[in-house]
Amino acid sequence: MTSRDGFQWTPQNGLKQGVPSLGVISPSAKITSDTPWDVIVVGGGYSGLTATRDLCVAGLKVLLIEARDRIGGRSWSSNIEGYPFEMGGTWVHWHQANVWREISRYQMGDEVEPSFDFSRGVNYFELRTDQYATTMSHEEEDTLLATALEKFVNVDGDMGRIVIPFPYSAFHNPDARKYDEMSVLDRLNIISQSLTPNERTALESFILLCSCGTLETTSFFEFLHWWALCGYSYRGCMDCLISFKFKGGQSSFAIKFFNEALSSGNLSYAFNSPVKSIRDEDKEVTVTTRDGRSFTASRLVSTIPLNVLSDITFNPPLDPIRTTATQTGHVNQCVKVHAEILNKDMRSWTGISYPFNKLTYAIGDGTTPAGNTHIVCFGGNHNHIHPEEDINATKAAVESMAPGNIDIQRLVFHNWSKDEFAKGAWFFSSPGFISSSLDALRKRHGNILFANSDWAIGWRSFIDGAIEEGTRAALTVKEDLRSISTPLRSHL
Amino acid sequence: MTSRDGFQWTPQNGLKQGVPSLGVISPSAKITSDTPWDVIVVGGGYSGLTATRDLCVAGLKVLLIEARDRIGGRSWSSNIEGYPFEMGGTWVHWHQANVWREISRYQMGDEVEPSFDFSRGVNYFELRTDQYATTMSHEEEDTLLATALEKFVNVDGDMGRIVIPFPYSAFHNPDARKYDEMSVLDRLNIISQSLTPNERTALESFILLCSCGTLETTSFFEFLHWWALCGYSYRGCMDCLISFKFKGGQSSFAIKFFNEALSSGNLSYAFNSPVKSIRDEDKEVTVTTRDGRSFTASRLVSTIPLNVLSDITFNPPLDPIRTTATQTGHVNQCVKVHAEILNKDMRSWTGISYPFNKLTYAIGDGTTPAGNTHIVCFGGNHNHIHPEEDINATKAAVESMAPGNIDIQRLVFHNWSKDEFAKGAWFFSSPGFISSSLDALRKRHGNILFANSDWAIGWRSFIDGAIEEGTRAALTVKEDLRSISTPLRSHL
Repeated sequence: MTSRDGFQWTPQNGLKQGVPSLGVISPSAKITSDTPWDVIVVGGGYSGLTATRDLCVAGLKVLLIEARDRIGGRSWSSNIEGYPFEMGGTWVHWHQANVWREISRYQMGDEVEPSFDFSRGVNYFELRTDQYATTMSHEEEDTLLATALEKFVNVDGDMGRIVIPFPYSAFHNPDARKYDEMSVLDRLNIISQSLTPNERTALESFILLCSCGTLETTSFFEFLHWWALCGYSYRGCMDCLISFKFKGGQSSFAIKFFNEALSSGNLSYAFNSPVKSIRDEDKEVTVTTRDGRSFTASRLVSTIPLNVLSDITFNPPLDPIRTTATQTGHVNQCVKVHAEILNKDMRSWTGISYPFNKLTYAIGDGTTPAGNTHIVCFGGNHNHIHPEEDINATKAAVESMAPGNIDIQRLVFHNWSKDEFAKGAWFFSSPGFISSSLDALRKRHGNILFANSDWAIGWRSFIDGAIEEGTRAALTVKEDLRSISTPLRSHL
Repeated sequence: MTSRDGFQWTPQNGLKQGVPSLGVISPSAKITSDTPWDVIVVGGGYSGLTATRDLCVAGLKVLLIEARDRIGGRSWSSNIEGYPFEMGGTWVHWHQANVWREISRYQMGDEVEPSFDFSRGVNYFELRTDQYATTMSHEEEDTLLATALEKFVNVDGDMGRIVIPFPYSAFHNPDARKYDEMSVLDRLNIISQSLTPNERTALESFILLCSCGTLETTSFFEFLHWWALCGYSYRGCMDCLISFKFKGGQSSFAIKFFNEALSSGNLSYAFNSPVKSIRDEDKEVTVTTRDGRSFTASRLVSTIPLNVLSDITFNPPLDPIRTTATQTGHVNQCVKVHAEILNKDMRSWTGISYPFNKLTYAIGDGTTPAGNTHIVCFGGNHNHIHPEEDINATKAAVESMAPGNIDIQRLVFHNWSKDEFAKGAWFFSSPGFISSSLDALRKRHGNILFANSDWAIGWRSFIDGAIEEGTRAALTVKEDLRSISTPLRSHL
């Protein structure tokens, strides 16, 4: 099935909107029960899928409402000519508790494969700045980035372990708050005399690969939190952040959740149904779609992303702290462009081109059935581009990563910045945001629960955090509804 | 409530069998449904608790049968005078997917605390061999053990990453099999010229802390697998293996699973009910207890540990490979002795006394409400002791860890070797066992599923592996029973 989302460009067909995905649900609606439902879940990304599945399995009647034609939210894949392109979200690791529990449960451990293959081809790292191009071995790349990162994060003499001893407790050490007030630029300014120019370039590029904001708008704490989650080491960051992915693409994983919910017999769903408003009354919640349909349930789980939440009308209105937080939003405007290129030897290439280029970071990430190299390129808000608006500029940005070695056969991407149901990619916070807003974003609002990776405690911004949040919401709803008198909830 | 399990010794009361635990279930039986059940789960450790909970929540009628008077199996805690003593199983970490998913789900992240506190007191490491005693700083301890471990595991020039690239796939790299044929002694012999005497002592002690077997009976692959799971680093091993525990003890965690199952209304249970035989017929499984009661269900989940499985009569009999494996068993005969000691300053002490002493490895692990230091000491099969058989010898072994600094106020322990329902502590395999037996141990036997940490894929031997296995069994049973015609399973 083909989703409306995403773009593909080929020399033969030019730019086309919409790409195929295992995550497209057809027919787009199946309503097997009448209002009121036990629970309405708004949003079919991993938070919504997890909440939906857990609640359906527990015997509750659930209606899943999704604006798009597909599951996965900001994390989905497109299989094109037998090869998966990850439109948003790619990498998973067994140190991510929630996502790996699901991979283990669905017996998909053997469906995970490495992104890197340095066994053949050019086998080097290319660092390009405005004036210079340097090539080095991957060992030298590791040393460069490890050295720079260790200088950057070592605020306490123990690589951040004292400041963030428990990554699953935001401010277990209250000293951590002061790092949330700092931007990464503030931190760079403190250590700037200790960095070589190459270290600084690699470090800034890596940080911006994580936040896809700017150095000024990226919270230093949030970066430290990623570092802590990854085990306080460069190697841990590489392992957890960009090393292992699904052979069949993200959507081959997401569909497992949906199918398990469906097989319970308790799932109704409506795709292509953007929500306009949510009204919470004493005993029930009513959601109204843009096209005027209304649905009612005892509880509602909103998985609407932070940057979109202020587009929905809540009645009663959200509290002031949450309202401010949704207006502030997060800073990640990631531009992720996949390129299929002729040069087979680029399989073992990695590159940084910064700050002059519209795309900053790229890696050789696979070989397509045609035998071409797949490279994935990242840019962000520091030098932003809307890739479909000027496809020649996008091609030029890809080619500038490694001039002369990139002969583009295909481009695939999703413009997350212009996506009205996302308004950005994975969460990354500006300075002060976590301190001021995290607690408020996690609170319930009457009969409405809020679940999204954007305010997870652990792997916030990751698929893992989405599953963490969906799990949390489902357990809360289950406990809520169990306390209602038995005759009403006899199927619990 | 007081369990029959465990021992406590104090100067006032001498040696007493039985200690209090949050995991004791009273009354010991609650049978709310008639035979046949949908599922019988044999064993109330974490595998059984997880399977029971998942199946109850999914609407299936479950009977949990447990030989002991408590939940937790080989992992439980005793709260004595307001302080938790971990009788078996202690440490958890957020890099353990299954256990952390549950901690996160039950919102217990803030219930986890560090074992170590080096902020006050003696703050040193004490290494005692037959002839010598050395004290060093904890930094020197880390360097000593890290250096030794890296020499030991670095079989491939990349710290084991090439041999075990995916710790969740046993022999993803077939080269790993050859390391399963080796004992750790074989590996030590290869690198012996590169180890200082102190490195060798620390390394052997650490390995035996993990396996609690002997150097000859400990598989080198199994140790490498632990190393890989911990992120291929010494610091990762410390973090994952012995750093973080529950403030309220293991049983405060286990009881959450039990209570969630109970609240579903679908749980029947019978404690104090050792199983004698399990008979699988075409459409149902019947379990018979030692006291002659019989119970029947559509499916049975056996979580009986490897070293006990051959005590149960299966009809039809288990296949030859599994039968051989259960007769071989695993090698872990851990002796874990908790001591409450007067010296407050020992809070920041760690020690090795090897090979002369009956207890080998110890750490300062907490401060009791009385203000005393709690130290936890480990021994194993290499120099075995049954601690309750000669309490003076046990006291002497504890005191020999740090002569003159240990004034024992209380000892608490569980003799896992003499426990007829465990016959050993956590799984650790002898050379060749994983290669020959892992696949067979994971297979179903007709309507009987086998779930135990002893044959988990990931954190085998850990609480995490137990939850992995219980999760796997529950999903299989759920899918099995869904395929049975709807009228029979209308509550699914």
